[in-house]
Amino acid sequence: MPYVFGFAEGDKDKKELLGGKGANLAEMTRLDLPVPPGFTISTHACRAFRDSHELPVGLLDEVDEHLQRLEREMGRRLGDAENPLLVSVRSGAKYSMPGMMESVLNIGLNDESVIGLALRTGDERFAWDSYRRLVQMFGRTVLELPPDRFEQTIDAVKLHRGVTNDLDLTVDDLRHLVDAFTATIKEYTGYAFPQEPREQLRLAVIAVFKSWDGDRAKLYRRQERIPDDLGTAVNVQSMVFGNLGTDSGTGVAFTRDPATGQTGSYGDYLPNAQGEDVVAGIRNTLPLADLASIDPSSYRELVHIMGVLERHFRDMCDIEFTVERGRLWMLQTRIGKRTAEAAFRIAVQLADEGLIDMDEALERVTGAQLARLMFPHFDSAGADVPLVHGVGASPGAAVGRAVFDSKRAAVRAVAGDAVILVRRETNPDDLGGMIAAQGVLTSRGGKTSHAAVVARGMGKPCVVGVEQLDVDVVQRRFTTADGISVNEGDLVSIDGSTGAVYIGAVPVVSSPVVRYFDGEVSDTGSDQLIHAVDRLMAHADKRRRLGVKANADIREDAARARRFGAEGIGLARTEHMFLGERKEHVVRLVLAPDETARQVVYDDLLPLQRADFAGLLEPMDGQSVTIRLLDPPLHEFLPDVTELSVRVALEDARGRTSTDHHRLLEAVRRMHEANPMMGLRGVRLGLVLPGLYALQVRALAEATADRIAAGGDPYPEIMVPLVATVTELERVRGEAEQVIAEVSAARGVSLEIPIGTMIELPRAALTAGEIAQAADFFSFGTNDLTQTTWGFSRDDAEGAFFTNYLEARIFGVSPFESIDEDGVGRLVAMASQTGRDAKPELSLGVCGEHGGDPASIHFFHRLGLDYVSCSPFRVPVARLEAGRAALSVEGSDSR
Amino acid sequence: MPYVFGFAEGDKDKKELLGGKGANLAEMTRLDLPVPPGFTISTHACRAFRDSHELPVGLLDEVDEHLQRLEREMGRRLGDAENPLLVSVRSGAKYSMPGMMESVLNIGLNDESVIGLALRTGDERFAWDSYRRLVQMFGRTVLELPPDRFEQTIDAVKLHRGVTNDLDLTVDDLRHLVDAFTATIKEYTGYAFPQEPREQLRLAVIAVFKSWDGDRAKLYRRQERIPDDLGTAVNVQSMVFGNLGTDSGTGVAFTRDPATGQTGSYGDYLPNAQGEDVVAGIRNTLPLADLASIDPSSYRELVHIMGVLERHFRDMCDIEFTVERGRLWMLQTRIGKRTAEAAFRIAVQLADEGLIDMDEALERVTGAQLARLMFPHFDSAGADVPLVHGVGASPGAAVGRAVFDSKRAAVRAVAGDAVILVRRETNPDDLGGMIAAQGVLTSRGGKTSHAAVVARGMGKPCVVGVEQLDVDVVQRRFTTADGISVNEGDLVSIDGSTGAVYIGAVPVVSSPVVRYFDGEVSDTGSDQLIHAVDRLMAHADKRRRLGVKANADIREDAARARRFGAEGIGLARTEHMFLGERKEHVVRLVLAPDETARQVVYDDLLPLQRADFAGLLEPMDGQSVTIRLLDPPLHEFLPDVTELSVRVALEDARGRTSTDHHRLLEAVRRMHEANPMMGLRGVRLGLVLPGLYALQVRALAEATADRIAAGGDPYPEIMVPLVATVTELERVRGEAEQVIAEVSAARGVSLEIPIGTMIELPRAALTAGEIAQAADFFSFGTNDLTQTTWGFSRDDAEGAFFTNYLEARIFGVSPFESIDEDGVGRLVAMASQTGRDAKPELSLGVCGEHGGDPASIHFFHRLGLDYVSCSPFRVPVARLEAGRAALSVEGSDSR
Repeated sequence: MPYVFGFAEGDKDKKELLGGKGANLAEMTRLDLPVPPGFTISTHACRAFRDSHELPVGLLDEVDEHLQRLEREMGRRLGDAENPLLVSVRSGAKYSMPGMMESVLNIGLNDESVIGLALRTGDERFAWDSYRRLVQMFGRTVLELPPDRFEQTIDAVKLHRGVTNDLDLTVDDLRHLVDAFTATIKEYTGYAFPQEPREQLRLAVIAVFKSWDGDRAKLYRRQERIPDDLGTAVNVQSMVFGNLGTDSGTGVAFTRDPATGQTGSYGDYLPNAQGEDVVAGIRNTLPLADLASIDPSSYRELVHIMGVLERHFRDMCDIEFTVERGRLWMLQTRIGKRTAEAAFRIAVQLADEGLIDMDEALERVTGAQLARLMFPHFDSAGADVPLVHGVGASPGAAVGRAVFDSKRAAVRAVAGDAVILVRRETNPDDLGGMIAAQGVLTSRGGKTSHAAVVARGMGKPCVVGVEQLDVDVVQRRFTTADGISVNEGDLVSIDGSTGAVYIGAVPVVSSPVVRYFDGEVSDTGSDQLIHAVDRLMAHADKRRRLGVKANADIREDAARARRFGAEGIGLARTEHMFLGERKEHVVRLVLAPDETARQVVYDDLLPLQRADFAGLLEPMDGQSVTIRLLDPPLHEFLPDVTELSVRVALEDARGRTSTDHHRLLEAVRRMHEANPMMGLRGVRLGLVLPGLYALQVRALAEATADRIAAGGDPYPEIMVPLVATVTELERVRGEAEQVIAEVSAARGVSLEIPIGTMIELPRAALTAGEIAQAADFFSFGTNDLTQTTWGFSRDDAEGAFFTNYLEARIFGVSPFESIDEDGVGRLVAMASQTGRDAKPELSLGVCGEHGGDPASIHFFHRLGLDYVSCSPFRVPVARLEAGRAALSVEGSDSR
Repeated sequence: MPYVFGFAEGDKDKKELLGGKGANLAEMTRLDLPVPPGFTISTHACRAFRDSHELPVGLLDEVDEHLQRLEREMGRRLGDAENPLLVSVRSGAKYSMPGMMESVLNIGLNDESVIGLALRTGDERFAWDSYRRLVQMFGRTVLELPPDRFEQTIDAVKLHRGVTNDLDLTVDDLRHLVDAFTATIKEYTGYAFPQEPREQLRLAVIAVFKSWDGDRAKLYRRQERIPDDLGTAVNVQSMVFGNLGTDSGTGVAFTRDPATGQTGSYGDYLPNAQGEDVVAGIRNTLPLADLASIDPSSYRELVHIMGVLERHFRDMCDIEFTVERGRLWMLQTRIGKRTAEAAFRIAVQLADEGLIDMDEALERVTGAQLARLMFPHFDSAGADVPLVHGVGASPGAAVGRAVFDSKRAAVRAVAGDAVILVRRETNPDDLGGMIAAQGVLTSRGGKTSHAAVVARGMGKPCVVGVEQLDVDVVQRRFTTADGISVNEGDLVSIDGSTGAVYIGAVPVVSSPVVRYFDGEVSDTGSDQLIHAVDRLMAHADKRRRLGVKANADIREDAARARRFGAEGIGLARTEHMFLGERKEHVVRLVLAPDETARQVVYDDLLPLQRADFAGLLEPMDGQSVTIRLLDPPLHEFLPDVTELSVRVALEDARGRTSTDHHRLLEAVRRMHEANPMMGLRGVRLGLVLPGLYALQVRALAEATADRIAAGGDPYPEIMVPLVATVTELERVRGEAEQVIAEVSAARGVSLEIPIGTMIELPRAALTAGEIAQAADFFSFGTNDLTQTTWGFSRDDAEGAFFTNYLEARIFGVSPFESIDEDGVGRLVAMASQTGRDAKPELSLGVCGEHGGDPASIHFFHRLGLDYVSCSPFRVPVARLEAGRAALSVEGSDSR
C-alpha cells in the first residue's frame, strides 16, 4: 500500500488511514467542491516513523511524485522565482485533536520564490510577510526554538521603528526580520534555514509526526481515551490566502446552531485575514451573514455548499473556508461538535426532514448527553469567580448554606433551608445529611469516594477532593489556603460538573428534561428539546431488549424511579434501614447474651422493617421489587474501634470508667475485622445469626400480604448477598421458604416470592451452574465482583494508587466506572452462560453501578442479560443506551 | 436389581452395594472358608428407605425368600419350638464405622423357640439368657427404650436374690427377667414384644437403617469425611455361639502386628464368650497364642485361614472369629487398620514377599502417615494427665519453659533454654519467638490462625484456641479456669497432635524419620521403618512427575529443605527481611518527605537485602531460588493504629505530648486501610514506590554476581506478587531488567534472571493468556487466590464463621486446607491452560500452602503443573504424594 494519497483518491470513510481532515478533504474533492488541491501522507507512514524513528523508505519518492502532479495541476512550481507554488502542511488524526499538533504554512517560500510571490500577487509586503511567517513558524515548530526569541526580535524592530502594530511594519522591516530570524536559527541550531522547498517539506512532515508524541497531545489523548498508536496523517495542500485584501477573508461556519440545534447557518467571518488571525483574536469577527453584503456571490456559493454537505453527510457540519480575491475555497469540513441540547434537537430534526431514520437519530445521541441535560446548571450569564476548584464528582449545580454535620443538615433542611453538606469525607452515617442536602462538598477523596458514588447515585451535585480546603467540623468552618473562611450557615455554590466552588449564591437553572421525566411538563411540540427527548426515549424503549430497573432503598426513590421509567426495583438495600436511630437495635443485637435476647430485638425490628418494605411495594405496584437481605458486617453499625478505644482510655485515665462503654468496646473489639469486606457479612451473617434473615423475610412476606389485602399488586423478590457456594443459598432458601409458608398460612394467601442471589464473588460466577439450581434469578453485583476479581477494595485503592494507575495507563478507565470486559466481564459471561445452561428460565440482571454506565450497558446487552438496575436518576440514561445497544448489534445489517 | 444378596452372590469388590462387612463375608464364602450362612440387604435398600422413610416395595418378599433358603440350608426354622434358627442383624457400611450403628443378635427367639434352643443346645440357662439378651437389646435399640430401665430391673433381681454376678442368675431369674422386660416394653411402647420372628427381623432392619442417620453416626461421618448419602447394608447371618461352654469362645486376630508392622499373627481370645463380652471388657482376654493349647485344631485352622486371607487380600487382615463347641467360624474380615509405622513397614514387607509390587506399596502409604512419623511424640508409657485441652494445630510434642514474649523467647533460646512461646494469639512480629521456641501455645484462634499456619510451616508443635486459659502477658503467666497458674519460666509440655497441655516436662521421643531425612541416620536395613521409608521415598521420586520445591525465607530453612529433598526454593518471602530491627527502616521510609530521602533508606537496606539473598542462594547452589518481591502493605510494619491512638491520646491527656509519636500517628492514619488485604500491597506498592523493587532486584542481582564470583552456581528468579493485569507485570519487568542489566555491566557478568508472577487474583487467572506474554513462569498463590475467589480473608473468616460452616457442612474441609477444586481449582485449570496455550514453555507451579496438602497435590498433578512448593517440613510428604499421584493417574490401567 502506498503512503501518500491524492485528494481524489480518498473518501470520508478512510479516516483511519487519512485522518479526519484528509478523508473529508478527499470527500469534498469527490463532490467537486472548491478544495485547494493537495495530497495526504497516511497515518500508516506516521506509525512506521514511530516504530523506526525515521521516515519509511519510499515515502519521499511518493511525496515527490505527488508534488510534481500538484505543480502540473496548479501550473506553478515550488520555489519558483516567478509563479511559485506554496503549500501548507497540517496534521490530521482519526479523531479530532484541536491545537494539539503542529502545522506549517507557506512551505515553498525562500529568497527566490518570495520575489515570485510578490510578482504573482502584486503585493510585495504580503510576500515578505508570508516569508517572515514561514521562517518564524518553521523555527518555532520544526526546529523547536523558544518562541519568544522571535517575538523579542519583532518587539525590538517595532520599538526601533516606533510602531506598535504588525501591520505598520514595512517591506524593509519584514525583510530585516527574515534576515534576523534566519540568523537566530543559524545561531541556535548551527544550520541555516533550508532554502530548498522539498527539504522544508521533509522537515515539516517529521515535525508533525513528532508532535503526535508531544506532551500536549499525549495528555489530550489520555483525557479523551484516544489510543496512542493510531498516529496522525499529514495533509499537504496548496495555499490559498484570505489576507490578499478586502476581497479576501476567512471564516468558520456551522450548518445549524451547535449550541441550541436551531436550524439555519451560523458562523463567523474575518475579512483580509488568515485562519491564524481568527485564532489569535486580534480583530473581532463579523457574523457570517455579513458576508452576504460583502461578497454576495461567495456567500451564495457557501450556503449552497453547506446544503450539499449536510445532505451528503446527513448531519450538521462544521466548515472552514477562505475567500481569496472573491474566490471561495473549502479548507476543512467535519461533523460539527454540539451541545447535548443541540444533539437531541438536530437528531430529531434530521429524522423529521427525512435525512435519517429514527434508528440513526437514536445513534446520534448518547446517555452521557442525556445525563448532562438532566443536571441543573449555573446560569452562564453570571460571571462569578470560583473560590477554589476540586474534582467534579457528580454533575449539576447546587446552592445552599454550608453545614458541617449530617444531623444538623437534616434538621436545617426540614426547617426549609437549602443546605450544602461539607465534610472532609463522608461515610454511611452521612446518608441522612446527603439526602437532606442540595449538594455535597468534601476536601478529600476522588471520583470513586463514598461521597462521589452516593451523590451520583442520588443524582446530586458533588465536588470532592478540594485539597486546598481545611475543613474543621468542630469549629464548623472551612478555610482556604489563602485564609478565607466560610462558616456554617454561609451561602456557597458548587458546580459538580466543573468542580468549582463559589462563595455566595450563584443563580441556578433547573433542568426542563427532569421536569419532563417527573411529569411536570409534557411534550406539546412547542419545546423542541422536550419534543426531541420524548421521541428519542420512545424510540429507545421500542428498540431496547434490556429491561431497566432501579436501585432504590426508600419510598421517594422508588416513586421517582417509576416516574423515570424504571420497570421495577432491581436492588433495595436493607442496610439503610438499620441506620440512624435503629443503630441502637444493632447494638442491642450485638450485646444480646443469647438467642432469646436476640429474638426480642428481632420482634422490635419486625414492624419497622415491614413498614420499610410497604413503602417500596406500594409505589412499585405491578412491578418487581427485589429486596437484598442484610449485607454489611454488623460492626459497621457500631462505633469505630479506634475512636472508642481512645474514648475509653481517656475516661479510664480520668477515673470516669463507664461499664457500658467497656462492654461496648469489648463487643466492638471482638467483632473487629482486619478486612471487613472479606469477613462476616452477607449470607454468612444470615447463616451465623439465623433469626436475622428470617426477620427480614417475615417482614417482607407480611408487607406483601398487607398489600394484597389492600387490593395492591405486589411482586416482591428476595435476593441473597455474597453467596459463594450453592449450599449457602440452599440453606437460606430453605429457611425463607418456611417463613413464607408460615405467613401464607397465617394470612390465608398464597405468597409466591422468587428467591435469587447476587453473583458478586468469583466463586459464585465459576460455580453458577450449580448455584442456578437453587436460584430463581441472578443479579450481578458488579461492584463487589470487580473488587474481588481485581483484589482491591474501592475505598482503599482509590486514594492509594488509582491515580497512579490511571496516569501510568495501567488502566484507561477505572474498572468501577466501566465494566472490565477482559476480567470481570469474562466472569459475567461465563456465569450467564452456565447459569442459563443449567436453568433456561433463569432471569439475569445487573445491579452494580455499572448498570447505569453506557459502555457497560452495551456489554450487558451483548451478553444477552435480561435487565440492568441503576440509580433512579440514571434510569432514563440506561433506557436510552439500552435502545442504542440494541441498534448497534441487531441493526448492523441495515447500515 | 434385587435388594438382597446371598453371601455366595457377592464378592469383596461390591463394598458400595453390600458394605464392607457383607462384601468380605461373601468373599470368604467364595473362598470356602467357614462362614455362618446368611445374606446381605444392600445399601441400595437403605438409600431407598432414607428417601421414602419406608422399606422399599418387594424388599420383605426378597428377605423372606432368602430366609427360606437359609432355613433349608441350615435345616432349622425361625421360631421353631424344636430346632430353631437364630440370626444376627448387623450394620455394615462401605467404610467402617465401628460402634456407630446398631446390631441385634438372637433374632428368632420367642416364647416357643426358646424351648427349642434349650433342647438343641441342651443348655436351658443359655437359652433363656439368650432370650433375655434379645428382648433387652431389642427394647434398647429397636424400640429405643432408655437402657437403664433394663439395667435397673436386673439390679433389682440381683438384689432380691442376693447375688452380684449375672452368671449367678438362674433359669427362673432369667425367665422372670424376660417377663419383666416384655412388660416394660408394653408399658413404654403400648405394644407387646413381637413374638413373630419375621416381625422381629423387619423391625431390626429398620432400626439399623435408622441408625445410619443417628447423631453418633453423623458426627463420625463428619469427622471422617464419609458422605451422608451412602447408606448402610444389613447383614442377616445365622447365629453361632461362643458362649456354649469351655470348648467355645470368641476372638479377634491380625495377620501382622497393627502397631509396629512386625510379621506374625496377633490377637486376643476369650473362652466361653460372645463378641459383646469382649467389647464389654468384663473378663480379661487371653493372647491368641493360648488358643493353640486350648483347641489346637481350631488354632491350626485359624492360622491357615489367616495365611489364605493375607495372600488373597494381599494385605494385612483383621479378623473376628468364634469357636462353637470346637468348630471355628469366621464372622468378619477386613483390611486391618494400622499405625503409620506399621503401614510403611507392611507395605515394603509385602513388596519384598512378592505379594505386591512397589507401585502398590506406594499406594498403601500416605503423606499424612509420613507426616505423623516425622513429629516427635510424648512417650506413651507416661501417664501424665493434661492440665487443659485446646486445638491440636500442628502435630508433635514439645517441652520447654513458658515464655510470654517473643523477644524474651529468643533471648532465652540463645541462652540454651528450651522455650514454649505462650501468647493469646500471634502475629508476624512473633516470628522470631516462634523460630526460637520448641512449640507454640495460644489461647485464641483455630487451625488456620496465624500461630497454627506458621507453626505448621515450621513443622513445630502448636496448640491453639485453649479457651480455658487466661493468658496475661503483662504479669507473664497464664491461669486456668480452675485457678491454676503457670508463670514464665515454668516447664510445660504441649501435644500438637491431641491439643493436650501438661504442667512439667513429659518425656519426648524424637522422630527417627526426621533424623533420617536430616542425614543423621542412613538406611542400613537394620531399622525396618527407616528401610521402608527409604525404599518408598526412592520409589515415589522415581514415579513422580511433579517437582517439589520449598517455601523458605531464611538460610536454615533453605538448608533443611535441601536435605529433605527440595529441588529449589519456590517461594522466598522478602517481608520477613523487613521485620525486627529493620522495621525502623520502614518507619523512615514512610516518614521520608521525598524521593531523595527514600533513596537514602534504600541505600541503607541494600547491603542487608544482599546478605539475605546470599544466605538463600548459597545452600541452594545449582537449584532455583524464587524471590518474591515485597508483598504486604507497608503499614503492616508500623504500630497498630488503635494502640498508637490510645497511647498518643493518653500522652496528650497527661501533658506529655510527643511530636515523634504524633508524626508517626499521622503517617499510620494516612496509611491505614479499611481492607489492607485489598489495598496498597504487592505489585501496586512496587509501582507506587518504584525504588523499592529496584532495591530488591539490585540486591538479588548483586548477591548473584557475588555467588558466581565465589564459584557458586546460583539460579535466582524474580516473582512479582498480586498482579491483576499484564501491564503491571510489564512495568515491573521493564524496571527489573534495567537494574539487572546495570549490575551485569558493572560486575562484568551476564546475569540471566527469569521474571515471573504469582497468579493469586481471579483476574490474573482470567487473563493468564495475556499475562503469560510477560512472564517466564506462573506460581499459583493459592492462599490469596482462595481468599479472593471466595471473598473471605482467612484471618477474619476463621474465627467468625468457619466453625459454623464446617458444622453446617457448607464445606466438608476448609478451602485453605485442601484446594477448592470446583471454584479456585477451575481458575487454576483455566489459567494453566490459557497460559500454556499462549507460551508453551511457561513453567507452572504452586506456592500456596496447598502445595503441601496431599489431596491438592493430586489435583495439581492431574492439571499437569510442573512443581509444588511447600514448607521444608512438608517436602518429603509432597514428594511421596506426588509419586502416589502419578500412580493413580498413569498407572490406572495396570490395576
